[in-house]
Amino acid sequence: MAFFFGLGLSSAEDITLRGLKVVQQCARVYLEAYTSILMTASKEDLENLYGREVILADREMVESSSDSILQDADKVDVAFLVVGDPFGATTHTDLIIRARSLGIPFEAIHNASVMNAVGACGLQLYNFGQTVSLVFFMDNWKPDSFYDRIKENREIGLHTLLLLDIKVKEQSFENMARGRMIYEPPRYMNIETAASQLLEIEDLRNERAFTADTPCVSVSRLGSPDQKFVAATLGELANIESGEPLHSLVILGHRTHEMEIEYLLDFATDKKRFQMAVEKEVEAARELQPAAPAGEDND
Amino acid sequence: MAFFFGLGLSSAEDITLRGLKVVQQCARVYLEAYTSILMTASKEDLENLYGREVILADREMVESSSDSILQDADKVDVAFLVVGDPFGATTHTDLIIRARSLGIPFEAIHNASVMNAVGACGLQLYNFGQTVSLVFFMDNWKPDSFYDRIKENREIGLHTLLLLDIKVKEQSFENMARGRMIYEPPRYMNIETAASQLLEIEDLRNERAFTADTPCVSVSRLGSPDQKFVAATLGELANIESGEPLHSLVILGHRTHEMEIEYLLDFATDKKRFQMAVEKEVEAARELQPAAPAGEDND
Repeated sequence: MAFFFGLGLSSAEDITLRGLKVVQQCARVYLEAYTSILMTASKEDLENLYGREVILADREMVESSSDSILQDADKVDVAFLVVGDPFGATTHTDLIIRARSLGIPFEAIHNASVMNAVGACGLQLYNFGQTVSLVFFMDNWKPDSFYDRIKENREIGLHTLLLLDIKVKEQSFENMARGRMIYEPPRYMNIETAASQLLEIEDLRNERAFTADTPCVSVSRLGSPDQKFVAATLGELANIESGEPLHSLVILGHRTHEMEIEYLLDFATDKKRFQMAVEKEVEAARELQPAAPAGEDND
Repeated sequence: MAFFFGLGLSSAEDITLRGLKVVQQCARVYLEAYTSILMTASKEDLENLYGREVILADREMVESSSDSILQDADKVDVAFLVVGDPFGATTHTDLIIRARSLGIPFEAIHNASVMNAVGACGLQLYNFGQTVSLVFFMDNWKPDSFYDRIKENREIGLHTLLLLDIKVKEQSFENMARGRMIYEPPRYMNIETAASQLLEIEDLRNERAFTADTPCVSVSRLGSPDQKFVAATLGELANIESGEPLHSLVILGHRTHEMEIEYLLDFATDKKRFQMAVEKEVEAARELQPAAPAGEDND
């Protein structure tokens, strides 16, 4: 059996009881180590807890040698561990599809992911639109498809969760060209980079999907003992120091509930300015609504 | 300290290791027992695992006597257990806000919720719009605000997760009027009721937010050993027998990825019909797109 495991967000002990029982009986245990990281647990912490060797699975192994991961999984139990929930990233679904096509029985063990735990910032999950990913810009490559997605969410008043890029085990072009297996140090996008990239694209596109005045929440080290939220405008977030990773960012929509704001104000760098930013958004959205025809019942 | 706990979806052993350690040291343990249920665990199962008495918290206790739950939580540890993740329902956030206003330190222990675990059906979480709730219709009360939300999602091509109503410890009007503490048996909305209610409102509103031909996925007993997905049109789902609860329903959007369909087809009652329903949607969406002006660069 192949088990696709969510490990939760931060520590080795975020695994479920059932998960621990299963992983302790698996013949091989892989840890997917390139789309996210456990913030307060090392490979050794997991090995100590599980009493099993943990094999780090990098992008190449998962995407090009998936059959080696799934080998014999019809006869022995194999665990594929993922930070968050196993259905959070396309790359894991690919592996599950592969297992299915090989006739290997599989099971998912769910856990918290940023996509539900983000509710801890006080915004209601019901008010979120589609989630988008933001990748590191390069000098000559600044993909901006996220912009349309955010715009769609904001046009109907919904919040947008942005998942920020991480680069693990990446090679420089030079090392790649020369076939040298030398890897760059890992990079995790911080809030200030994310906010700056967003504003850079808004400057280029200028469709006012958002502005420097748009209220946002930075979400740092979610689910770890030192998790931190900062409620501020996008312009302000471009100039903070968000500290240690991992980070995510939420851009608010205008359909914000009073209770959400009440909760968020505790995290505001400047309560008054944040409240004003929210009110300005709500006001602007109201002006865009078509006025109700006189005398018509809008029930 | 007040601990707001997610228990995950199905069994007592879906609690995290860290969660178990914390709950075992709590002076009082409450289980929120009206917005959801653990599908394969009783109160006694939890008590046996935790070595603690578990107090069932009904709506009245949580919404009207929240201070009794939080009493002394500045001095002793109190656990408030919730199926799924603690930030899944507004009612829990209310309690957290109350704790905060009383100056009680609190912490959240996250877990899987239907809002991320639904990815197990093969649809990518990135392609979901806002989540909506569907309540049981009564003869004279058929709230349809969900319709606009689904329409918004569908207009931009996104999937919609519908959370289906559960009624626990409800009184009949007669018993309520006479002050009799007699409760109706619990009711859990099934797929066929949800699909019928949706079609009933589409008939009334007739804005074609969806039709009987819209492809959907029924999600039954998610995260439990007998979880089941059925990929079919909404009209077909109005006539299935979805069996034991809990259930959720997903209405597909037209921005469906090939990999999602490949995954879903395994759950289709009629593969060919389901594939045709999806293709029809994609086609209809394409026709609605404004044609690109000739000669203009759409980069």
